[in-house]
Amino acid sequence: MKLTAAELCHRLKHELISFRYLVEEDIGVLAPFITCRQVQKGEVLWREGDPCDYVAFIAQGRIDIEKETEFEGKQVIVGVYGKGAIVGELCMLDQTPRSVTAVALEDSALLILSKENLERLIEENPALGVKLLKGMLLAVSTRLRKSFDRLTSIF
Amino acid sequence: MKLTAAELCHRLKHELISFRYLVEEDIGVLAPFITCRQVQKGEVLWREGDPCDYVAFIAQGRIDIEKETEFEGKQVIVGVYGKGAIVGELCMLDQTPRSVTAVALEDSALLILSKENLERLIEENPALGVKLLKGMLLAVSTRLRKSFDRLTSIF
Repeated sequence: MKLTAAELCHRLKHELISFRYLVEEDIGVLAPFITCRQVQKGEVLWREGDPCDYVAFIAQGRIDIEKETEFEGKQVIVGVYGKGAIVGELCMLDQTPRSVTAVALEDSALLILSKENLERLIEENPALGVKLLKGMLLAVSTRLRKSFDRLTSIF
Repeated sequence: MKLTAAELCHRLKHELISFRYLVEEDIGVLAPFITCRQVQKGEVLWREGDPCDYVAFIAQGRIDIEKETEFEGKQVIVGVYGKGAIVGELCMLDQTPRSVTAVALEDSALLILSKENLERLIEENPALGVKLLKGMLLAVSTRLRKSFDRLTSIF
């Protein structure tokens, strides 16, 4: 049985780092702005250079983030993100295209928040917008911290 | 002649990535929440493990971010940030201590936003809070993108 986006939001509230600052009633307000999308193993969510129009929260499965190296066609995996993680936030705030390629490593379920809906949510409910943005900032900061850890373990 | 935090905020509006979404009148509202701090070359802003109570925007100078490696006392530089950059946002949102050490590479001027003031600003003016958080998210996302670039240039 497939769950609706609203049901998934409620279920994942405690697992999504980006939802850290939301209380139960915030989820009820947020849910209509979010849609649910199923992706098959191997499916490409977007490629480096694609236009950027949504951010995804992983409800189930794993998403692989790849980036082209200086050797054409040779890619390096810069991250593998699982349940509870945010993907695709990198280009939501400026007008740049996708800077990485995202591929489903297994059958996955995503909660999709489009750029338009994020802007509308912030406009209509700035207090909720603040909580969501704080959570997204926490998620990205935590990822950057892990990226630093990877850099220090290389040297 | 030393500039006040308010004057620095206005001057730096177009150079601080975190202030990207603020309009001129927002700066007037934000400025009283911010203080200005001068640091000397070589001065340690904070060490890995210190409590985390403020975020800094670099008004002038350069700040070196270091992290301990698995070899005790051996540190690796994970970033050098210059005018317009944000430092110390990593631990502002969770309750963890500083995860990196920050040292002034040259005489620098910082705009300091304490954790308390950020919370108070968000509480009193969520619409402005949204704009500032979006800018901070943009700053951190951009840094993460650069970190990915460094990882791909290593492989």
